[in-house]
Amino acid sequence: MLFTRRIYKTSVSLEDALGTWNEFVSSLPRAESEDITVVGSLGRVTAAAVQAKISSPFFHASAMDGYAVRFHETFGSSETHPLQLRLNDQALPVNTGDPIPEGYNAVIMVEDVQIRGELLEIIAPVAPYENVRTVGEDIVQTELILPENHVIRPVDIGAMLSGGNTKIRVRKKPLVTIIPTGNEIVEPGTELKTGNIIDFNSFMIGGLVTQWGGQFRRTDIVKDNKEILKKKITEAVQESDLVIVLAGASAGTKDFTPNAIEDLGTVFVHGINIKPGKPVLLGMISGKPVIGLPGYPVAAHITFELFGIPLLYHFLGPEPEKPETVKARLSRPVASSLGQEEFLRVKVGKVGDNLIATPVGRGAGALMTLQRADGIVQIPALSEGVAPESEVEVRLIRSRSEIEHTIVCIGSHDNALDLLANFLKRRYPSCSLSSAHVGSMGGIMAIKRSEAHVAGTHLLDEKTGEYNIPFIKKFLKDIPIVVMNLVYRQQGFIVRKNNPQNITGIEDLTRDDIVFINRQAGSGTRLLTDKCLREKNINPLKIRGYDKEEFTHMGVASSVLSGAANTGMGILTAAIALGLDFIPVAQERYDLVIRKEHLNTPMIQALLHIITSGSEFRDAVVSLGGYDISDMGNVVYEQ
Amino acid sequence: MLFTRRIYKTSVSLEDALGTWNEFVSSLPRAESEDITVVGSLGRVTAAAVQAKISSPFFHASAMDGYAVRFHETFGSSETHPLQLRLNDQALPVNTGDPIPEGYNAVIMVEDVQIRGELLEIIAPVAPYENVRTVGEDIVQTELILPENHVIRPVDIGAMLSGGNTKIRVRKKPLVTIIPTGNEIVEPGTELKTGNIIDFNSFMIGGLVTQWGGQFRRTDIVKDNKEILKKKITEAVQESDLVIVLAGASAGTKDFTPNAIEDLGTVFVHGINIKPGKPVLLGMISGKPVIGLPGYPVAAHITFELFGIPLLYHFLGPEPEKPETVKARLSRPVASSLGQEEFLRVKVGKVGDNLIATPVGRGAGALMTLQRADGIVQIPALSEGVAPESEVEVRLIRSRSEIEHTIVCIGSHDNALDLLANFLKRRYPSCSLSSAHVGSMGGIMAIKRSEAHVAGTHLLDEKTGEYNIPFIKKFLKDIPIVVMNLVYRQQGFIVRKNNPQNITGIEDLTRDDIVFINRQAGSGTRLLTDKCLREKNINPLKIRGYDKEEFTHMGVASSVLSGAANTGMGILTAAIALGLDFIPVAQERYDLVIRKEHLNTPMIQALLHIITSGSEFRDAVVSLGGYDISDMGNVVYEQ
Repeated sequence: MLFTRRIYKTSVSLEDALGTWNEFVSSLPRAESEDITVVGSLGRVTAAAVQAKISSPFFHASAMDGYAVRFHETFGSSETHPLQLRLNDQALPVNTGDPIPEGYNAVIMVEDVQIRGELLEIIAPVAPYENVRTVGEDIVQTELILPENHVIRPVDIGAMLSGGNTKIRVRKKPLVTIIPTGNEIVEPGTELKTGNIIDFNSFMIGGLVTQWGGQFRRTDIVKDNKEILKKKITEAVQESDLVIVLAGASAGTKDFTPNAIEDLGTVFVHGINIKPGKPVLLGMISGKPVIGLPGYPVAAHITFELFGIPLLYHFLGPEPEKPETVKARLSRPVASSLGQEEFLRVKVGKVGDNLIATPVGRGAGALMTLQRADGIVQIPALSEGVAPESEVEVRLIRSRSEIEHTIVCIGSHDNALDLLANFLKRRYPSCSLSSAHVGSMGGIMAIKRSEAHVAGTHLLDEKTGEYNIPFIKKFLKDIPIVVMNLVYRQQGFIVRKNNPQNITGIEDLTRDDIVFINRQAGSGTRLLTDKCLREKNINPLKIRGYDKEEFTHMGVASSVLSGAANTGMGILTAAIALGLDFIPVAQERYDLVIRKEHLNTPMIQALLHIITSGSEFRDAVVSLGGYDISDMGNVVYEQ
Repeated sequence: MLFTRRIYKTSVSLEDALGTWNEFVSSLPRAESEDITVVGSLGRVTAAAVQAKISSPFFHASAMDGYAVRFHETFGSSETHPLQLRLNDQALPVNTGDPIPEGYNAVIMVEDVQIRGELLEIIAPVAPYENVRTVGEDIVQTELILPENHVIRPVDIGAMLSGGNTKIRVRKKPLVTIIPTGNEIVEPGTELKTGNIIDFNSFMIGGLVTQWGGQFRRTDIVKDNKEILKKKITEAVQESDLVIVLAGASAGTKDFTPNAIEDLGTVFVHGINIKPGKPVLLGMISGKPVIGLPGYPVAAHITFELFGIPLLYHFLGPEPEKPETVKARLSRPVASSLGQEEFLRVKVGKVGDNLIATPVGRGAGALMTLQRADGIVQIPALSEGVAPESEVEVRLIRSRSEIEHTIVCIGSHDNALDLLANFLKRRYPSCSLSSAHVGSMGGIMAIKRSEAHVAGTHLLDEKTGEYNIPFIKKFLKDIPIVVMNLVYRQQGFIVRKNNPQNITGIEDLTRDDIVFINRQAGSGTRLLTDKCLREKNINPLKIRGYDKEEFTHMGVASSVLSGAANTGMGILTAAIALGLDFIPVAQERYDLVIRKEHLNTPMIQALLHIITSGSEFRDAVVSLGGYDISDMGNVVYEQ
């Protein structure tokens, strides 16, 4: 046996892990405190109550522009019997905020008087201290301005200064030391070699620390060496409130973190029945919390949210805000493993009155699934999944109003959609375009189920040779829609630069030295592939790689570039983007299908405005290469 | 005539002012851009789309700990017919994230194999690229990571670094120069003289600028001199994206700001029909926006929110978040001036199922009303007010969950309540105590209307000599409540230090040289005063100041300290707090009335725990002075 491996032995439930951890957390002291200036205290947390040192106002002040008077000298005046007061004797001019001169006790507003030479004519009496802000009207010396554990806002800064405070006691920002580990880990910006992994996790986790009121420090990357790691951890524990060791907590051969932490202190939990995030480690060294985070970024992010938030908030004092949740309809079924709590990333869109949650990819390594997600659905450990159309509770990552201003575009992928998304956000910052790539047919069905505002589609009807319309007539019967052309585009075989294997057409796919990469069933590109095969009577089973599917044109191009496949069907634009060569097969029409009921919403209007007016978007599409935009923005069909 | 004054001539509606301003704002360019490191980009706004420079992963990587194999060599294996692969030839060990060695194309998980010496036994075949993260699986080179106008989150930092970006283009933080003006304005921390006003507004407004993504710079305080002010404004306009002149925009004699701005550029609007905030000025100098904010802090805060948010967000790109609003029931009627849009500050509490909004003070200078507010109710210009029990829309300042964890305490004021609020926040940071001081009777009626969880009360029934219970039996008939004692306290006459006017009792109130300060009708202290007057057959109309009311004990004490009054009835604790002398009149019982239905809520339990257990809170109350705590926490009545 060449090496030993540790398989997770202690898989605890999330509930138990949180129970153990939060009990430990609540036994820890709050962060130390420090005295800082009130002026620089925005966002900090009070470590002691702040009281008014002086009253505000601390003198009787005029509340209006006007004249200070003695109230009893105004008695008897009325519109029919005006009274005249001697200026600079019975009536002294005061501006708002001026102190009331000694011996005077009310103010008449400037709007209520007439100047007659040296006399002031008044037509109504004033009450004692009318239009006067008396001492302590706002706050009286010794009164509470802020309690302990309060997050300081701009208005609090104003109130503290106005109450005579210039310094206050706040909690120190908890210091979190992040230790990235692994022989394969390299600094961002390094020239990459195969096998290298950029350490982006440290900065992502550090960003969360900053966002939650802490400060982070990152050590150099520690190679896979248990003794060096132990030394680093020991140093970090002495200097910090929390130590995070990144990666090295799974069961791989070179994962020294659990052993190192066990040698130095206590491991409470190693391995939790959650997905992603299983290999997380929770421990303590010299009374200080230590967390071993999984190397997969989605797992690291989700587990740090679970265990880092309560810890940092405990150090600082306030309670974490409850995240916003909404109920949404799940657009497709999700299977889940019994006994494992899953954190499913979803896109959420509001289509008509429906909030629709669409699961995005589930890989723990697929950071973009989290980056693009609008929310998280937690599937309980005792569930084997969620049926389609079920109502689920979504913890929102983006705000509800952002989600309500998001155009949900489901269907075939096209690079021009990425461009459209950026133009939309640039010109109409309140709007977003979120696109899910499930193929043309999937898009049409999403329109049918009212789960998308827009579907991108390029489905060739073999009988008529017509694009899209026959399918729409069949599947979207009686649903009022418009079909607008976006582009014509070249489909063909994407091959490596200079076509080293001399692929010339569909017949080459059955060659022994060729590995093909396919598109998923239901995509327009798959239909085109299959049509070509039928025309030439080629048996798909004879094509190596026919059963391996990608979901986007860029995915196909990327497979070819990386050598995973020799060729695949895709659009010219994708080949151009990655510097690959291309053998044209067909020009096809790529249309947008839009439900008429959404046409007049501001966000769809914004989208149409970008497509139909001015040349900036058109020029940008043309510069991608491979597109014919002669029909862009034209309505090709409606019903 | 001694001086000239300008009265607002151009009072425009809020709608017109916003229309003019937002049209100007949208004509301004976005903030300039700058290149910064991705690592330091948290919270910044993208000024250009960010695309992947490399695919992620950029090599085929093992998705699992296990063994790299050639998939076709695994065919035919099953539980009944295991296959054996030669280690280090047909099966190479790989950890998660390792590159797939050249010539291999799948990974078998470590959990699915058995090691037999030099052989690896497998019981199931794998598909091509199973357990492999293929190149670009997460993101393909050239794909969009972030659009323009996106606020960068921790997960975006991860995604950008993982896509090979180390520097990105973001918008510069808009620079806002704040110019405080006025002869009376002094720096925080200055030894104060009568008439001085601390410049806290600059730092409060600066805090808002920081919070909305800008940066602020504050000039020295500019004295009331138009030429110096013009020079300062001219310099500031050249260097900044926005210039704010603080105060000096009202109609007072020394308010040079409007003239200065008119001399240098254009005044769009001066004077808006809103309350507070009427004197705001909106203008432009050399194409740059200039705002003259009112000197009253609440007015400054509210108008800067109205006109500053759209401006700063326009510079940066994203849309401002829509503030959260809730519907709440107004607990008392509010009269409002026709033709003036009012921004009413309210406390919001959830009592049972009711969200209750209680207006707090309305003075534009009363910053604490804003600091303590939970939300703002906008009363339209065409309304003359809002009837009690009306449903109003409240724009929340604190989060809904904070509000739902706030104990609403309405009734008589006692200094021990401030202490209780701080203890609650310290020990149970998720809970808050919000107290409104409307007198004992007001508290009992709030309990009756289900608008408060707790009422503080000290009502003496003259017939029986008993405190509180007779009133509760009468007004809270059939409502299940408990009455718990908080303290006994000394009521009496608060007089100046050493009692210079030799006040000895109630008979002195009618003296010519004595000005009295009263408490509001419905307060227990007012009842006590009136009872004493009746016992001595004293006509209240003979008491100077009898008609001037304060709402708290500290307010009464403060009036005495400042000389606005010579004496008033209040508690010993208030006299001690401000170093005043005291003539005892009665010991009274101050109780808390709690509706039984709320008793078992966590927040009321938390409150009771502080009162009834341990000595820390008791000791703190005793140290305020003037209290007898022998019955603290004892239930004196329930029904």
